[in-house]
Amino acid sequence: MAARMSNAIAAVILAAGKGTRMKSDLHKVLHPIAGRPMLLHLMASVDELNPAKKVVVVGDKADQIEAALNGSAALAVQEPQLGTGHAVQQAEAALAGFDGDVLILYGDVPFVPPATMRAMVDRLNAPDAPAVVVLAFEPADPLQYGRVITDGDRVVKMVEHKDATEAERAVRLCNSGLMAAKARDLFALLARVTDDNAAKEYYLVDIVNIANADGRHCAVARADPADVAGINSRAELAAAEAQWQRFKREEAMAEGASLRAPETVWFSWDTELGRDVTIEPNVVFGPGVTIADNVIVKAYSHIEGATIAAGCEVGPFARLRPGTVLGEKAKIGNFVETKKAELGKGAKANHLTYLGDVTVGANANIGAGTITCNYDGYFKYRTEIGENAFIGSNSALVAPVKIGRDAIVGAGSAVTRDVADGELRLVRGEQLVKPGWADRFHDAMRKKKAEK
Amino acid sequence: MAARMSNAIAAVILAAGKGTRMKSDLHKVLHPIAGRPMLLHLMASVDELNPAKKVVVVGDKADQIEAALNGSAALAVQEPQLGTGHAVQQAEAALAGFDGDVLILYGDVPFVPPATMRAMVDRLNAPDAPAVVVLAFEPADPLQYGRVITDGDRVVKMVEHKDATEAERAVRLCNSGLMAAKARDLFALLARVTDDNAAKEYYLVDIVNIANADGRHCAVARADPADVAGINSRAELAAAEAQWQRFKREEAMAEGASLRAPETVWFSWDTELGRDVTIEPNVVFGPGVTIADNVIVKAYSHIEGATIAAGCEVGPFARLRPGTVLGEKAKIGNFVETKKAELGKGAKANHLTYLGDVTVGANANIGAGTITCNYDGYFKYRTEIGENAFIGSNSALVAPVKIGRDAIVGAGSAVTRDVADGELRLVRGEQLVKPGWADRFHDAMRKKKAEK
Amino acid sequence: MAARMSNAIAAVILAAGKGTRMKSDLHKVLHPIAGRPMLLHLMASVDELNPAKKVVVVGDKADQIEAALNGSAALAVQEPQLGTGHAVQQAEAALAGFDGDVLILYGDVPFVPPATMRAMVDRLNAPDAPAVVVLAFEPADPLQYGRVITDGDRVVKMVEHKDATEAERAVRLCNSGLMAAKARDLFALLARVTDDNAAKEYYLVDIVNIANADGRHCAVARADPADVAGINSRAELAAAEAQWQRFKREEAMAEGASLRAPETVWFSWDTELGRDVTIEPNVVFGPGVTIADNVIVKAYSHIEGATIAAGCEVGPFARLRPGTVLGEKAKIGNFVETKKAELGKGAKANHLTYLGDVTVGANANIGAGTITCNYDGYFKYRTEIGENAFIGSNSALVAPVKIGRDAIVGAGSAVTRDVADGELRLVRGEQLVKPGWADRFHDAMRKKKAEK
Repeated sequence: MAARMSNAIAAVILAAGKGTRMKSDLHKVLHPIAGRPMLLHLMASVDELNPAKKVVVVGDKADQIEAALNGSAALAVQEPQLGTGHAVQQAEAALAGFDGDVLILYGDVPFVPPATMRAMVDRLNAPDAPAVVVLAFEPADPLQYGRVITDGDRVVKMVEHKDATEAERAVRLCNSGLMAAKARDLFALLARVTDDNAAKEYYLVDIVNIANADGRHCAVARADPADVAGINSRAELAAAEAQWQRFKREEAMAEGASLRAPETVWFSWDTELGRDVTIEPNVVFGPGVTIADNVIVKAYSHIEGATIAAGCEVGPFARLRPGTVLGEKAKIGNFVETKKAELGKGAKANHLTYLGDVTVGANANIGAGTITCNYDGYFKYRTEIGENAFIGSNSALVAPVKIGRDAIVGAGSAVTRDVADGELRLVRGEQLVKPGWADRFHDAMRKKKAEK
Repeated sequence: MAARMSNAIAAVILAAGKGTRMKSDLHKVLHPIAGRPMLLHLMASVDELNPAKKVVVVGDKADQIEAALNGSAALAVQEPQLGTGHAVQQAEAALAGFDGDVLILYGDVPFVPPATMRAMVDRLNAPDAPAVVVLAFEPADPLQYGRVITDGDRVVKMVEHKDATEAERAVRLCNSGLMAAKARDLFALLARVTDDNAAKEYYLVDIVNIANADGRHCAVARADPADVAGINSRAELAAAEAQWQRFKREEAMAEGASLRAPETVWFSWDTELGRDVTIEPNVVFGPGVTIADNVIVKAYSHIEGATIAAGCEVGPFARLRPGTVLGEKAKIGNFVETKKAELGKGAKANHLTYLGDVTVGANANIGAGTITCNYDGYFKYRTEIGENAFIGSNSALVAPVKIGRDAIVGAGSAVTRDVADGELRLVRGEQLVKPGWADRFHDAMRKKKAEK
Repeated sequence: MAARMSNAIAAVILAAGKGTRMKSDLHKVLHPIAGRPMLLHLMASVDELNPAKKVVVVGDKADQIEAALNGSAALAVQEPQLGTGHAVQQAEAALAGFDGDVLILYGDVPFVPPATMRAMVDRLNAPDAPAVVVLAFEPADPLQYGRVITDGDRVVKMVEHKDATEAERAVRLCNSGLMAAKARDLFALLARVTDDNAAKEYYLVDIVNIANADGRHCAVARADPADVAGINSRAELAAAEAQWQRFKREEAMAEGASLRAPETVWFSWDTELGRDVTIEPNVVFGPGVTIADNVIVKAYSHIEGATIAAGCEVGPFARLRPGTVLGEKAKIGNFVETKKAELGKGAKANHLTYLGDVTVGANANIGAGTITCNYDGYFKYRTEIGENAFIGSNSALVAPVKIGRDAIVGAGSAVTRDVADGELRLVRGEQLVKPGWADRFHDAMRKKKAEK
């Protein structure tokens, strides 16, 4: 992450396309992978290069992208959309005065490793000073891609598949679309690209052939095919998610977590796990989860925005929502939901409970069926439960309310006023006893049922 | 679906076998795939041909099949079971007077595409008028199958694997068992089949060799091996389910649904999804589910017989049972069960709730732990909740009961009488306060525990 | 299992290694597969040979292994750890006076079939009386393994990969590490092994070369590579789990259970299933589960220590904990937890319930939201519910308490005293009615909200 002694870098990220194959009202580059929009995965990788400038070229649904970037990059609008070369040209104004290296990236190619980006820029600054660096790859099936015809490290020609000769088609090296060039070269070359083709579009790839025609050197850099896979459909989105998850699961196991069925655990992009963490089958992590050592997460747990201390047990069937903070050895059991809930060391909520907007003291025991009534339809209110308090089953704690340390709430109580330290609070009607009533009821109902 | 100008079609479906490898008391062809008995998958495909007649040949567990077909096809009983040729002969009476084309299908080969069936019939009516059309396929491993020896489109010979010569075994084209023939040809040929073989059975396949011996033309049609896979064990059943699900998931994504982990979503045969529907990992759909646009279904949801309007959020851990109808932007949260429950626009039941036999008005808020008490052990009763009503947490609504518009039910109330519009209803005991009681209790219990 | 007429067998199991790649505070051989520590899987296989002696050689975390074995095998401590040969030597004292056949096994190679072990011993006792039997295998990729150079059945040489010639590396037969030898041969040979090598360790494999130098015969036995796979990382642990589960699922289907999505059902090592059992996607079994015929286990069920009789329905979202015993046709529905709970024939708990330390009579109906309050923070108490009793929704049964046969508990009741047979018990506050209060509340709150 340390600043590097090198040329300044600008990243131009193309994100103007319509992405019609997604059939979505959400812009393609904002569809999430591991809980983060794919564009933001790419921006995070770009940031590892400490770029001087970042320009995202937008068109369709520009407002959505602007909101997602939230000021972290400049925007350039491409309207109308006349091809990739034209798209890059729209970034020229935002890069006015910039004289460093420009990397051209794509919002729907989110998993280019920073090292690959760095290699492209490094190549650009090598002694033979290429005008353009083209990132190429060898896919398993190159059929549809444009080919990169090389002579050693030199790009001799870029050719579309449909225009390629038999010999050119036999070449397996394909164009990823990613390029690097000095800013002054890039925009000078782009100015000479024409739309003299069937689609009437300005193709970025033409700058290579123009530079070649000038006798300039164009160099090739190489990428792993998986690293430059584009995402154009929901099936490709799911495949990218699957690849990301496989990588993360392997990393988690290598770091000392046991996943009984790794293929059924879905991590978020930012999930952090301690050592000797055990994760049963079928656990879903949303963003913002940190788990310390020796935690057991049982099957069917759904966890987001939660910090879980060492030795905790969670699940099965636990749902931890944002703002959950569990102290050491706390337990959250089955059919329990927590939200903005801080539990002290050793506190327990084992069954059928809703804890929202609440602080629970150390070693407090929250009985089955307890509900914190934190909402009156308009505002939210807090509940505070003291250390070692015991909340009887099926109780409703009507916030705002405080339950003191060591206090006991009797089963089935709806508590509306504070309970003092060491106090017993019982809210319960009379035990109404009707001997024989049930026998008579059964008789009557059986008769009624028989009549129907 | 439009009626076609062509010969009348009759489908004869063989379903008399014992299916012993299933080790089941349920007839093999009734084991479900995607929630529908495999036989009914096949019948639905048959129906796309608008057949004039459908005859299902039954033997073992005939009553189960009769119940499943529910009058939608004629039945012919094969008793005893003397082979496939004998089975088809049992359909002759049900087809008395029928002079069109007969398709012979198998209840345990459920995924033959209608287009393939159609192609068989069309071939039967082509100029050279074959006596029999045989559906053949090329499996990856042809070892166990009977071979179809052809000369161009003509079937020269059908040969069992055990009787085949080395040269015949080298042929990869295998007999699927499916055939088509004119009714008059079919039954005339079948009458000449004998049981002169080791198993003392009448084999359907012999009609081809008999027709050939007559100098009649027999033609081959071809199928994809996956389309004619037979299901003989629970492992093959699971494989068929997996194949069906893969196909459906790809279709769902192509149509604009996001499946974060497609391999963990199980659709029913009739599930309908809108555009921009997001489905988290681990969702199971039972029959009868329709989901509109922009719905989010979170992890661990189990949904059957439910209609979900645009913009709803469901789950995680939601269980929607038949008769659930959600209005626009309604929310069903974690550990909530609904059954015969109609929720208005924007109504919410976010936590730990049972809504059965209930109508909920628009924007009503059902608090955590609410239970509609819809059953007295004999009969079911309805609950009506008005628009914008607020049901406090841990309440029991004892049906039949009405809660008015804008009414509020206090937390922990068991409501047994109607609540008027705009009314507050509170059912709650006295707050019994016992200062210091809990402290004394803790002291006594700690002592007792220490003594044990 | 019957005792065999043969030499006495002793098993020496090496489990002294540090297993650092697991990054765990738990000893590697105690990490569970299918809910059982891998060492105990191996011990169970060893027991099928009726061994006269079992010695586990321990070093790191010896106390954990001692606790897991719980007296079922002798322990020998290897301290310091000077190689595999040295490890086996530590078992010599425990085998003093033993004159039979010694099998050398590894705690992290848990799935060696008993038949393979038996074959090694049988080979040792064949006419040509080998000094050592080496278990070898042919992995897909033999690169890292030591090679076994053979001449027919005779082991000519054992060679480490790094010391192997080009010709020796071309041999695909590899050393599993497992060996068998007569006790007297084994320890005599081991006494001659030196640590004259780069690692300064005593290698077990050297006994083969020493025996060969003596002109003794050493024989090879062969294993399936999957049967001798060692587990050194959590990823390999997960792979072993996956392999075990695949095998078990296939077995379950072959025996007549339907698994709609077999890859999502996780069995325990001891799960027993009846015939025509249906298991929906996503079911996790812990140890101690027995399921009879015609049971349906719906999606998202988590079951351990439970006995389930014929015709029961469980789930979805059911959590059955140890001590659960369900009578015929009992039903446990969604969001229900049971623990030490015995339910009679036809009893039902369909929704949002906690049943702990309870007996439920036949045909009793436990309403939604029922909680058995079995814990006072110090001790547990039992609840008894009679036949045909009806527990109204949202009730709390405060144990110890008995509910009689045919008794009815009104919805929302906290029952603290016994309910007699045929009695109705109702514990409920007054219905407090405040007309118009809610309307005024809404007005006030809307105003307050607008002001904020």
